[in-house]
Amino acid sequence: MISFKSDYSEGALPAILKALADTNEIQQGGYGDDDYTREAIDLIREKINHPQATVHLVSGGTQANLTFISSVLRPYESVIAATTGHIFHHETGAIEATGHKIETVFAQDGKLSPALLATFIDKVAYLHMPLPRLVYISNSTELGTHYLRAELIALWEYCQSKGLLLFLDGARLASGMQAGDLRYEDLAKYTDAFYMGGTKNGALIGEAIVINNPSLQEYFVYNLKMRGALLAKGRLLGIQFRELFRGDTYLSIGAYMNELAGKLSAGIREAGYEFLIESKTNQIFPILPRTIIARLEQKYAFYVWQPVDRERAAIRLVTSWNTATKAVEAFVEDLRACR
Amino acid sequence: MISFKSDYSEGALPAILKALADTNEIQQGGYGDDDYTREAIDLIREKINHPQATVHLVSGGTQANLTFISSVLRPYESVIAATTGHIFHHETGAIEATGHKIETVFAQDGKLSPALLATFIDKVAYLHMPLPRLVYISNSTELGTHYLRAELIALWEYCQSKGLLLFLDGARLASGMQAGDLRYEDLAKYTDAFYMGGTKNGALIGEAIVINNPSLQEYFVYNLKMRGALLAKGRLLGIQFRELFRGDTYLSIGAYMNELAGKLSAGIREAGYEFLIESKTNQIFPILPRTIIARLEQKYAFYVWQPVDRERAAIRLVTSWNTATKAVEAFVEDLRACR
Amino acid sequence: MISFKSDYSEGALPAILKALADTNEIQQGGYGDDDYTREAIDLIREKINHPQATVHLVSGGTQANLTFISSVLRPYESVIAATTGHIFHHETGAIEATGHKIETVFAQDGKLSPALLATFIDKVAYLHMPLPRLVYISNSTELGTHYLRAELIALWEYCQSKGLLLFLDGARLASGMQAGDLRYEDLAKYTDAFYMGGTKNGALIGEAIVINNPSLQEYFVYNLKMRGALLAKGRLLGIQFRELFRGDTYLSIGAYMNELAGKLSAGIREAGYEFLIESKTNQIFPILPRTIIARLEQKYAFYVWQPVDRERAAIRLVTSWNTATKAVEAFVEDLRACR
Amino acid sequence: MISFKSDYSEGALPAILKALADTNEIQQGGYGDDDYTREAIDLIREKINHPQATVHLVSGGTQANLTFISSVLRPYESVIAATTGHIFHHETGAIEATGHKIETVFAQDGKLSPALLATFIDKVAYLHMPLPRLVYISNSTELGTHYLRAELIALWEYCQSKGLLLFLDGARLASGMQAGDLRYEDLAKYTDAFYMGGTKNGALIGEAIVINNPSLQEYFVYNLKMRGALLAKGRLLGIQFRELFRGDTYLSIGAYMNELAGKLSAGIREAGYEFLIESKTNQIFPILPRTIIARLEQKYAFYVWQPVDRERAAIRLVTSWNTATKAVEAFVEDLRACR
Repeated sequence: MISFKSDYSEGALPAILKALADTNEIQQGGYGDDDYTREAIDLIREKINHPQATVHLVSGGTQANLTFISSVLRPYESVIAATTGHIFHHETGAIEATGHKIETVFAQDGKLSPALLATFIDKVAYLHMPLPRLVYISNSTELGTHYLRAELIALWEYCQSKGLLLFLDGARLASGMQAGDLRYEDLAKYTDAFYMGGTKNGALIGEAIVINNPSLQEYFVYNLKMRGALLAKGRLLGIQFRELFRGDTYLSIGAYMNELAGKLSAGIREAGYEFLIESKTNQIFPILPRTIIARLEQKYAFYVWQPVDRERAAIRLVTSWNTATKAVEAFVEDLRACR
Repeated sequence: MISFKSDYSEGALPAILKALADTNEIQQGGYGDDDYTREAIDLIREKINHPQATVHLVSGGTQANLTFISSVLRPYESVIAATTGHIFHHETGAIEATGHKIETVFAQDGKLSPALLATFIDKVAYLHMPLPRLVYISNSTELGTHYLRAELIALWEYCQSKGLLLFLDGARLASGMQAGDLRYEDLAKYTDAFYMGGTKNGALIGEAIVINNPSLQEYFVYNLKMRGALLAKGRLLGIQFRELFRGDTYLSIGAYMNELAGKLSAGIREAGYEFLIESKTNQIFPILPRTIIARLEQKYAFYVWQPVDRERAAIRLVTSWNTATKAVEAFVEDLRACR
Repeated sequence: MISFKSDYSEGALPAILKALADTNEIQQGGYGDDDYTREAIDLIREKINHPQATVHLVSGGTQANLTFISSVLRPYESVIAATTGHIFHHETGAIEATGHKIETVFAQDGKLSPALLATFIDKVAYLHMPLPRLVYISNSTELGTHYLRAELIALWEYCQSKGLLLFLDGARLASGMQAGDLRYEDLAKYTDAFYMGGTKNGALIGEAIVINNPSLQEYFVYNLKMRGALLAKGRLLGIQFRELFRGDTYLSIGAYMNELAGKLSAGIREAGYEFLIESKTNQIFPILPRTIIARLEQKYAFYVWQPVDRERAAIRLVTSWNTATKAVEAFVEDLRACR
Repeated sequence: MISFKSDYSEGALPAILKALADTNEIQQGGYGDDDYTREAIDLIREKINHPQATVHLVSGGTQANLTFISSVLRPYESVIAATTGHIFHHETGAIEATGHKIETVFAQDGKLSPALLATFIDKVAYLHMPLPRLVYISNSTELGTHYLRAELIALWEYCQSKGLLLFLDGARLASGMQAGDLRYEDLAKYTDAFYMGGTKNGALIGEAIVINNPSLQEYFVYNLKMRGALLAKGRLLGIQFRELFRGDTYLSIGAYMNELAGKLSAGIREAGYEFLIESKTNQIFPILPRTIIARLEQKYAFYVWQPVDRERAAIRLVTSWNTATKAVEAFVEDLRACR
């Protein structure tokens, strides 16, 4: 059985395992006070060209979202997200558990824009609704789409004009960036904060929260500790992100995943099938007859995403840092054979 | 510089690193739905002789405490802890952040008992105070002391008689158990839940929460996800706990740490110094002249715990899975040379 | 200026002011431990024919909703409401502030049904979403519609079959009941809890929370105190609800408000105008040309509810315990004169 | 039975009941948007000589404390209070329920000072403890003591120097002020915010929160609504505070209560008894033989506060706006007769 279920089905880049072994017996301080974490932070600041940014390494995506968002909101402030936003649909009410409402805006392709935000912001009037304060976006989105540089800048300018904070969830950032024209330094310039996912990009665990806006930086680490997000052996995260941000490792994993997903897409398209939505990232959503889906499921693992009509459904295929080209070729070949 | 600051200054047991490498490319399900986690859980259930216990692997101790405690309390219920309890003093208000007050009882040696609990419980009367519902203890305690089997049973019986839940924080459980007569199955019989620390016992990260009381088990995993404590690559935790609970690895690390701490204690005592408190675990608290502390600090890292009088202070020395016998010998020798 | 903005624009029934004066110097216990509160509770239990129900008097509707809902949910549990539900739209995130997500179902007329609930419940699958646990309805609804007895029973049976709690917000209960066939004892039989509004039914302030389900009763008063909802001078609430539930006062106010709203409706309809939604309660939503609205606004206060088309908008008119028949007649006359 | 249990055993000043009756049929806006509330706020601003202060009227003391404190703290920030502080001991964990830890400092007479605060502040070091941010005091205190002007100024200056906010709970403010030399304008100058109690000073219900610090004012009303503290019929509070702050009514009630409590104290002292603590406010704590307490309890209601020795206990006697001189005289006479 070959799995296209997710980009977190395998362990980590061999370079990461090697670095863990190489550093294993060296004594370091706890709670992020270690050389590896310091080096990782320096590398990240350099990449994004923002020496004053603060960087915090945490274990997972929901943790990154909830620690940052809860840290910057007043109790009566809310978050705005797309209806497909991960924090709204797939985090078991983690944001609400910190006391905050998520207001949603419908976005066909999972991407927010000034025009969509305006449909909500312009009708919020008064104290019987929470005060909207932070806009949450993800890149790539939960639908595999990605933001272009101009789109991010437009969102940023809208948020600035309305006194809204802009936060970008980068659980799949490398894939999202490699699909478009966004560069590291755009993330530093055009968001108040963002996180760069490690778990889905070749690490054992780990996400790097980057806070660009100086007014949000000072006591964030207290919030991390309070939410159970500060690892005693922070070195585990530092070592991994040091590996990911040496040279081009981080983005090149995104490129690799996108390339393989692109091969899958091309093969499926050539075999005559359509897609639920256009995606250039490592998540693709082909529409297949249910009979064919059933046959493929005998050999491949993937999620059936949503029904399309009586006969057909969309499935989700995801490539990872360790997906083999031959796995992709086998899938396409088996699909062709199903016709 | 040799560090006796903590038991989380180094990486992990070589066997753990090897297991990570050996399993690295095998695809597994996410969020704890992997073979390694299942095997680890089976090993733990077997060790504690409680096949109906549920076991959940999380990243750290504060996370284990806050996810479990917040899961079982009604909003208006409180926790009782010793004034030295880790959740009261060193977790940045993590329990309060989930909405619950911690009531404290002063305990000279950091250990709660029915008599101490009664001083509080017997004076709580009415609805202007939260309803006490859960008793929190740690083994070993924050002062290096440990519970004997008879002491745990007495606490358990008291809690049962008062409708209180009993939860044991086992961040340093192996060391605590090896210092006394507590066995795995006592933890299953005489607590509602407990956790077994990996981070301070040879793992990269990880704590295993064990829920004995069936009425507290059903939806706990929802709380984990909601608090950002459910790792996508749960395999990282499963692999480690599988290694720790194969054979006697887990307890033997505790024994090793205690042995080395015992050697340190013996050497310090022979050199003519007293201790703040008697400890048979891997944390010891010798009282030394400040002038000698200053000299030792040039070569060794440790915490100055608290002032004792004008000339003297207590320091804390901690041994780890990787502390070398020669490090202990060197410390004692240098201390003798200070006289 | 005559106001049809709300049913809380005036003070209280003269009988309530008189009772306050009559009891003013009699010393009573605090925090609900007073004779008047006890009498009010007895009267309410008798009316609903449920001697084991517990009754708690609080200050306002948002307070009633948040204290009850937060008391019965586990942290990871959610509420289901109509998209028009008051807790979702007009309480500034009060439920989310207690840590719980509200899941919404679209209901054209603001009323939930088993079929509508099923569209949501049947697709909730797993631990990445909160566990749905309580269904929130209001009677009358925020759109002026009301539940029939058979509809409430159907909802109750659906909730029972799915392990869901059913809670009814009765901010405008008397009006809602008098518009249909619901009786007091139906509320006791077919909900787990409900509240009966005083503020919008002739009291100075006050809502009576009734908990039918014995498993939810025991410590609710702790939650009240913790949320700042337990008045030291609870007598203020007791005295008022004793007046409201002596004889038929409570429901007769609902009947009076509905009668006057009915007169308004009839007059508006005769004048040739349609309504946004059919309502037999004290809130009505006529659709009028904007030019006419502007003229009426010079003499009457009311909310413009929502635009209908370029020329027209729906307005909301609300009658209260103190609305005068001549005010209604004047409005209709002035409307006719606008043509 | 005559009660000295509390200052909330009776209804309200006749002038308040009259004002309620006089305004009853006048239509007003909801949620504090009414003429009476505006007039009350103007009167209060004038009294404290701080035209830029914002004033918010709420139902009760716990509500005032929790809405203000939760509004100004970041999630990881804590409150400092005396161990006897009302928020720590008698509000069922209301502050913790909003997510914040209360750190306590022992104060013999219930009053905080720079020296006492320093014992705590100077040892808080780092991110494993919450960040202390707000100092909570009450005047009068829970032990009947009161702050002098110089003491408040010293606290204020200390808080300013440490970046701490200062909040004063004035549930019994009039009594506390009349016992010493504090004036209204001192409260405006030397606290960030405070509240003035109505419930225990002749109102049916109500406390007036005054926010002096402009940086804390802007969105506080959102927090009120979110916590269920914003009454639809805000007029009920506005009418009452308008009466209390016309002329000298508010302070004269404090003076009256203190005078009667002083008579009680003098009589008890003359009868040969001591006091647990010196109090010039409306709460006094005489120490009496238990046999005498038992006899007094047949005719008077009061709380037995705490045991003093085998034979004696301290009781608490409280006078109210409606305590009769003859009740005081009767008590003293009966006490003398007990000898």
